[in-house]
Amino acid sequence: MSEYAVRNNDGNSVGIVEKRTFTFAEPPDTMALESGVKLGPINIAYETIGQLNADRSNVILITHALSGDSHVAGYYTEKDKKPGWWEIMVGPGKGIDTDRYFVVCANILGGCMGSTGPSSINPASGKAYGLDFPVVTIGDMVKAQKALLDHLGIKKLLAVVGGSIGGMQVLEWSLRYPEMVTAAIPLATTTRHSALAIAFNEVGRQAIMADPNWNRGNYYDGPRPNLGLAVARMIGHVTYLSDESMRQKFGRRLQDKRDFSFNFDADFQVESYLRHQGSKFVERFDANSFLYITKAADYFDLKNQHGAGSQVEAFAKAQAKFLVVSFTSDWLYPTYQSKAMVKAMKKNGLDVSFCEIKADCGHDAFLLPNARLASLIKGFLERVQLES
Amino acid sequence: MSEYAVRNNDGNSVGIVEKRTFTFAEPPDTMALESGVKLGPINIAYETIGQLNADRSNVILITHALSGDSHVAGYYTEKDKKPGWWEIMVGPGKGIDTDRYFVVCANILGGCMGSTGPSSINPASGKAYGLDFPVVTIGDMVKAQKALLDHLGIKKLLAVVGGSIGGMQVLEWSLRYPEMVTAAIPLATTTRHSALAIAFNEVGRQAIMADPNWNRGNYYDGPRPNLGLAVARMIGHVTYLSDESMRQKFGRRLQDKRDFSFNFDADFQVESYLRHQGSKFVERFDANSFLYITKAADYFDLKNQHGAGSQVEAFAKAQAKFLVVSFTSDWLYPTYQSKAMVKAMKKNGLDVSFCEIKADCGHDAFLLPNARLASLIKGFLERVQLES
Repeated sequence: MSEYAVRNNDGNSVGIVEKRTFTFAEPPDTMALESGVKLGPINIAYETIGQLNADRSNVILITHALSGDSHVAGYYTEKDKKPGWWEIMVGPGKGIDTDRYFVVCANILGGCMGSTGPSSINPASGKAYGLDFPVVTIGDMVKAQKALLDHLGIKKLLAVVGGSIGGMQVLEWSLRYPEMVTAAIPLATTTRHSALAIAFNEVGRQAIMADPNWNRGNYYDGPRPNLGLAVARMIGHVTYLSDESMRQKFGRRLQDKRDFSFNFDADFQVESYLRHQGSKFVERFDANSFLYITKAADYFDLKNQHGAGSQVEAFAKAQAKFLVVSFTSDWLYPTYQSKAMVKAMKKNGLDVSFCEIKADCGHDAFLLPNARLASLIKGFLERVQLES
Repeated sequence: MSEYAVRNNDGNSVGIVEKRTFTFAEPPDTMALESGVKLGPINIAYETIGQLNADRSNVILITHALSGDSHVAGYYTEKDKKPGWWEIMVGPGKGIDTDRYFVVCANILGGCMGSTGPSSINPASGKAYGLDFPVVTIGDMVKAQKALLDHLGIKKLLAVVGGSIGGMQVLEWSLRYPEMVTAAIPLATTTRHSALAIAFNEVGRQAIMADPNWNRGNYYDGPRPNLGLAVARMIGHVTYLSDESMRQKFGRRLQDKRDFSFNFDADFQVESYLRHQGSKFVERFDANSFLYITKAADYFDLKNQHGAGSQVEAFAKAQAKFLVVSFTSDWLYPTYQSKAMVKAMKKNGLDVSFCEIKADCGHDAFLLPNARLASLIKGFLERVQLES
C-alpha cells in the first residue's frame, strides 16, 4: 500500500534509514510454530528510527499490513524517490514522533521483504521453500518479533501500533506478551475475519493458484504467476477502497475522455487504475507470500486462540492501554467489529480509548494523510508516556 | 443464479415448458448494433408460459440477469430436478401469475444459452465468433427482444420485469420503446454502474483473460479457461451476498468441523462454497459471454444514453408506471441508486411506486423467496391491469 506514501516537502522526514537483518533459530535450534512445525534459521529484516533512551522506555514497535515491509519511514539513499510506507505518520514531530520515540519495524515472518518466507532458501534443499514453507500464524509473526526485541535488548514496549493485519499483530502482542506492552494501538482491524473477508482472500488465493506459472508454488526458477497475483491484488484494492471513495476518485470517467472502445481495453479510469496496481504489485511482491499472509490473517481468531471462545475472556490477559480506531467507510473491517473488541476490553476494566474516524476512503484510510488520526495517536502516546 | 431456485412441492409449478428459437436479421439483412457494427443472423432462444389473451394485453416480458437464461420457470421434462431460475415468482397464483399473464423470457444477445453470442458460429468463418463477436449493449439486447415480440405479434407489454442486469433491460425498454411499456418493474438495479461495480466486473474479466486457455477468446476447439472463469464467478458471488448474509450462512465455520489444515485446502465453509460455485458455473457458462455481458452492464448509462447527461431528462421519454425495488443489504446496487432513479421519475410526474425491502441476503435477494416482493409485484400488476 506504499503507493499512497508521499514525500514530505517540509523537511520533516527521518531522512536516511538502514535495513538490517537479525537471524535466529539457527540449527540445531528452531522456532516452534503454532502448527507444531519447527522452523529455522529465521531471518528478520528490520529498521529502527530515533534514539533508544537510557532506560529503554521509549520503544514503539510498528507492525505492517499485507504488502508492507520494514521500511516504515525515511529513505534508503539520498536519491530515493519514495519514502517508507508510513512516512506521513512517522517522523520528527509527527503522530509517531521520532524525536521522542525509538521506532522498530520488522518485515513479518512469511513475507518477502527480507524476512524468512516461502521465497527464502530452504536449507534442507538448497532451493526456495515454495509450498514446503510451513503455514505461519499471526502468533508466529509476533513470536519472531519478540525474538528480535530480545536481541535488541528491549524488555518493554511503550506501544505497539499497526493497521489491518498489522492491527492483528498489535492485538496478538497485547495478549501473548501482556507484561511487555504498555500501550496498544490497533487500527482498522478485527479480532477475527468475517466470512466476507475470508471470501475475498480466498478468491485472491484462487486467482494465484489458477495461474499455471504458479506451479504449486514452485516457480522461483521459471516464469512467475504474475497474472494471477495481479488479479489477487486488484481484488485487494477493491476491498481497500469504498463505494464513495471510488466514486470520488474515478466515478465513470473514461480513460481516453472520449467514448467507449467497444472492445476489452480499459475504457474506464477505474479499470486502468486496477490494472496498473496489479502489474506494479507483481514487481515487488511474491505470490506465495500473498498466500501465506492472507492465510495467517484468515486463521487469526483472538476469541478462540486466547479466550476459549470468549472475546471477554481473551482480553482478560491484557494489561495494555488501548487506542482502537476504525473508519466509517471501511467495509473490510467495519466499525461494528472494533466496537465489539472495545466492549470486551472494557468488560475487563481496561483503559480503552475508541474513535471511529469519518473517512470516505475505506479500509486504506489509516495509510492516508489524516490530521485527526495523527493527533489522536500523538496525544495518546504522550499520555501513556507520562503515566508510565 | 439458478442455484437458489427450489422445486415447488405444493403443485403450483407451471410444469413442462419448451425452449424455442427465433432467428432474424438474416443476410442480407442485419441488425445494427449501438457500436455501429451490423450483426446477423441472430438467434434468440425464448420460452413462453401461460395464454396470450384475445386482445394480447396480458404480456409480461421477464428479462434475466448475468447468468440467467430463457428458462424462467417450470421444467423441460418430467424428470428435470431443477426448475427455471425464477420458479419462486412465476407460476399459477404466484407473484407473476401465469394463470393471468402470458410470460415471455428470452436469453439475452451475447449470452450462451441459445441466443447468439461469442460462442455461436460466425457465418463468415464457419467457426465460433470468439472476440470477433461485436461488443453489444443493453440497448442491443432490448432491440433483439423487440424483434422477438414483433415476431410473436405482440405490440404492447403489460409489464417488463427483471432484476440486476435484467433491471437495466427493464429501464432501457421503458425509454427505448416507451409506447409499448405499460408498466416496468426494475429490481435491485441501477441506471449506471458505480466505479465499484465496474471494478468488480473488471477484476472478473481480468481473471478470465489471465487464464492461458482463454487464448484471446479462441478456445472453442481446445481446453476452456475454466480456472479463470471460476475465479470470476467467485468474485461475483461475493458481490451478490452481503457481510451479514455471509455471517449467517458461513460465519467462520470450518469445513471439517475440526481444526485448521495448515495448508491451502479449503479450511472454512465459505471457501469451499466459493470453490463449488466457481467449478459448477464453468460447466454451464461461456467465459466470453461473461466478458461481453459484464461489459454491456458497465457501458449502460441511462443518463448519458437517453438524457444527454441528465437522469431527469432521460425519464422524460418514459410513459410506464414503475415499481422500483431495492434491498437494504445490496451493496452492488445500493438503495441510494434506486432512490435517485425514483426521484428522476417523479420529477417527470410518472406514476412510481418504490419499496426498499429489508433483506440480509444482499444483491441476490430478488432471486430468493420473499413474500413481500411477491405480493408487491402481484398487487402492482393487478392495479396496472385494472387501470389499463
